[in-house]
Amino acid sequence: MSFSLGELATRFGCDLDGDPETVVDRVATLSNAGPQSLSFLSNPKLSEQLSSTKAAAVLIRPDTSADCAAARLLTDDPYAMYARIAQLLHPLPVPVPGAHSSAVIDETATVAASAQIGPNAVIGERSIIGENVIVGPGTVVGSDCRIDDDCRLIANVTLVRSVSIGKRCILHPGSVIGADGFGNAMGPDGWIKIPQVGGVTMGDDCEIGANTTIDCGAIEDTVLENDVRLDNLVMIAHNTRVGAHTAMACNTTIAGSVTIGKRCLFAGKVGTVGHIRICDDVFFAGRATVTKDITEPGEYASTFPAEKAGDWNRRVAQLRRIGKLSERVKRLEKQGK
Amino acid sequence: MSFSLGELATRFGCDLDGDPETVVDRVATLSNAGPQSLSFLSNPKLSEQLSSTKAAAVLIRPDTSADCAAARLLTDDPYAMYARIAQLLHPLPVPVPGAHSSAVIDETATVAASAQIGPNAVIGERSIIGENVIVGPGTVVGSDCRIDDDCRLIANVTLVRSVSIGKRCILHPGSVIGADGFGNAMGPDGWIKIPQVGGVTMGDDCEIGANTTIDCGAIEDTVLENDVRLDNLVMIAHNTRVGAHTAMACNTTIAGSVTIGKRCLFAGKVGTVGHIRICDDVFFAGRATVTKDITEPGEYASTFPAEKAGDWNRRVAQLRRIGKLSERVKRLEKQGK
Amino acid sequence: MSFSLGELATRFGCDLDGDPETVVDRVATLSNAGPQSLSFLSNPKLSEQLSSTKAAAVLIRPDTSADCAAARLLTDDPYAMYARIAQLLHPLPVPVPGAHSSAVIDETATVAASAQIGPNAVIGERSIIGENVIVGPGTVVGSDCRIDDDCRLIANVTLVRSVSIGKRCILHPGSVIGADGFGNAMGPDGWIKIPQVGGVTMGDDCEIGANTTIDCGAIEDTVLENDVRLDNLVMIAHNTRVGAHTAMACNTTIAGSVTIGKRCLFAGKVGTVGHIRICDDVFFAGRATVTKDITEPGEYASTFPAEKAGDWNRRVAQLRRIGKLSERVKRLEKQGK
Repeated sequence: MSFSLGELATRFGCDLDGDPETVVDRVATLSNAGPQSLSFLSNPKLSEQLSSTKAAAVLIRPDTSADCAAARLLTDDPYAMYARIAQLLHPLPVPVPGAHSSAVIDETATVAASAQIGPNAVIGERSIIGENVIVGPGTVVGSDCRIDDDCRLIANVTLVRSVSIGKRCILHPGSVIGADGFGNAMGPDGWIKIPQVGGVTMGDDCEIGANTTIDCGAIEDTVLENDVRLDNLVMIAHNTRVGAHTAMACNTTIAGSVTIGKRCLFAGKVGTVGHIRICDDVFFAGRATVTKDITEPGEYASTFPAEKAGDWNRRVAQLRRIGKLSERVKRLEKQGK
Repeated sequence: MSFSLGELATRFGCDLDGDPETVVDRVATLSNAGPQSLSFLSNPKLSEQLSSTKAAAVLIRPDTSADCAAARLLTDDPYAMYARIAQLLHPLPVPVPGAHSSAVIDETATVAASAQIGPNAVIGERSIIGENVIVGPGTVVGSDCRIDDDCRLIANVTLVRSVSIGKRCILHPGSVIGADGFGNAMGPDGWIKIPQVGGVTMGDDCEIGANTTIDCGAIEDTVLENDVRLDNLVMIAHNTRVGAHTAMACNTTIAGSVTIGKRCLFAGKVGTVGHIRICDDVFFAGRATVTKDITEPGEYASTFPAEKAGDWNRRVAQLRRIGKLSERVKRLEKQGK
Repeated sequence: MSFSLGELATRFGCDLDGDPETVVDRVATLSNAGPQSLSFLSNPKLSEQLSSTKAAAVLIRPDTSADCAAARLLTDDPYAMYARIAQLLHPLPVPVPGAHSSAVIDETATVAASAQIGPNAVIGERSIIGENVIVGPGTVVGSDCRIDDDCRLIANVTLVRSVSIGKRCILHPGSVIGADGFGNAMGPDGWIKIPQVGGVTMGDDCEIGANTTIDCGAIEDTVLENDVRLDNLVMIAHNTRVGAHTAMACNTTIAGSVTIGKRCLFAGKVGTVGHIRICDDVFFAGRATVTKDITEPGEYASTFPAEKAGDWNRRVAQLRRIGKLSERVKRLEKQGK
């Protein structure tokens, strides 16, 4: 899609410093932009690229003083504005209504006429597919699922059963929603599987990364509220509830029966124990290990940064000597008396 | 399925404190139970919910004195008993014998007449599918595999080749069994792939979580003994052997050629190096890093719990100052002489 | 395939200590070898097995003095030589040209006549499949992809769109290449998705493990140079560049916009923050947390090894007392003056 800078300025309420007739049709980085590209400056480290960029226009804060070779679209939040204009320039593919001949749709399923069901997709008993939904190739939707309007299951997604998904959700390939939670009781002869009879309820505007798994509840549903964003290889265990607008980066894993507040941010590889509560507006640094309730908003962490192995091995040895060091200090204190 | 409390008491050997004619047909949590629900009290924190529960009956230890609004089924291990009765009330789906018309079954494969082969499943050369097995939609069973009776491959599972699975195993979606182990030798021009010619042998009653991977052996088989339970996003590398009744929670990863004993428990995100031995009855706390043989049963750990980022950053700085602190103490000791 | 020891010695330039007429047709471990097996000694711990092995021949360093029951093929690097001979004895399956009748190939796609397209595979619009490529069962190749000659996509692989793969790459089941990067800007009403318009470019001779994910770039491509080897459950985020011959073990996760040099080795569960540069020839120990640029080759680490939980809990308490210990030392120093 192509738009003139004048149109963009009007539509998004930006001041324009440049020719309103100039047309852009794609986004680009400052360093590799061409004459029909829109770029943005969000990271100040890149401001030196402004003077040499070949972009047609750059989204930029009004108070940025650096010399800029392109037209400037002024906005207080260049990154969010970039997101909105990029969606306009690069719209999502429009669903092509109808089911591919190789798709297998159970006769008790209900599929909206506007939905697109891809090659080799499978739709199970009593499941309901809403308007403009795309069920991509190789995707399996089990029984008793509901996918609301405008969702996109990209390819090879699996919804096991009893999964309910709100509007405009995006599920990336390999994501598995509604598999059995990990519930086992030890009996005299070995493990006894606890039947997992709950489902999964997901709100509107959620995005689920590639190979991420969200297990069904043991008895009631596992819940994602609206606008939850999960990266790849994330795990949400049974009975957990994730609050609205919470985002989790790659490989974060949440154990069972955890309740997470709204607008929390989990950096990569965070892990939690089960049965805890995390309040709203908490930020966890990468690889944080969350072992108890968090009742105060703010930033939490528990990881040492990597250093040269020799230095690090010295730290490990030092930590192991603290006990002795403490005894030596005690001895000195006694001598001093 | 529905049962009277009298039937359940007799069948499972529980004492009943309540009306034997009352019927239950589902499980429920104490707080959300309805009049035909069975619930249980295992976590003492929830005992205050006993007085207000609307459940028909509650599985409970005989020595629990709290006031209970429901009939009581008495048992020393309410969680294990709950598992057994829940399996009765919520039985697994019965296989519907036969292969879906869209399934692709190699002419050299052998499929029991009682097995169910789902839409778009693929069964490879010389593979053998036992009685009452369910091969779910989108599942690929490669060549030379053997799946014993009563197994369930839920959907989009992949068995690459030469995978042998015992009776009653459950494989959740996205699990990959028998992919090549990660074997590479550095040669003068780059990596040389080591052919991975072993297979995978899995015992009876194993359960494999969503998107979990178990690699084939480099020469001989990777082995899971009976009743191994793996959660989601777990990795078992080539040549590893996992002892009977061992369970691993989400995202635990075991490197190659590790031998793990029986009845071990791995909490989430545990990782091991390769070529080590772990004895029976070891418990690893979450995110433990196992770097050498474990020869004594018991609990092992190596992770710091998350705290406020300011406090944590102080710890990091303090650890880095131990060396200097130690020198200062040495100086004091010399002065004291 | 079977070869005489004489043939192998000539072809690979090894000295032979044994009968050149002896034939081998498979590889085996020293302990389980049979009379037609070739084995190798790379790990000195296993040298005591040499005297009792039933192997026909053993690849071994010339300076190994241990008594050996088998013929000896002498080489300075037995492991690399084993890799090369094992590839000869156990060659990869040869593609069977043609597409299975259940495969769905878009009419705008171009598939080489020598390529094998498996059951229920899907090839999207404008994608190009090279000579001798195997696209395994259940694999989805989206639109605008290019798979160069001799690649193998084993089964249930997903290439989302705009993925370009060099020659001789191997992609294991469940791997997802080209899914959207995790890009979100927070707006006044919640997250705004950043369109991810780049693709993925992969060089020759790469191997991608089971359930590993490589996201497409936000604007330009995510790049793997030649001969990159990734184990299972690895994550490469958007815009990242991985240098040639770099290898990453299981569950390593690289955040976005990271530039990694050549010949780096990542042990298991390493994680990095985004927007950093790592120079050539860096080795990261298992579970290292990489938080800033690495400009010097060598080994880096940041993990404590697991120990008995009681001992470990004492370390955690000790670390928390360092601040007080430091104050006590300061007090002693003042007293000493």
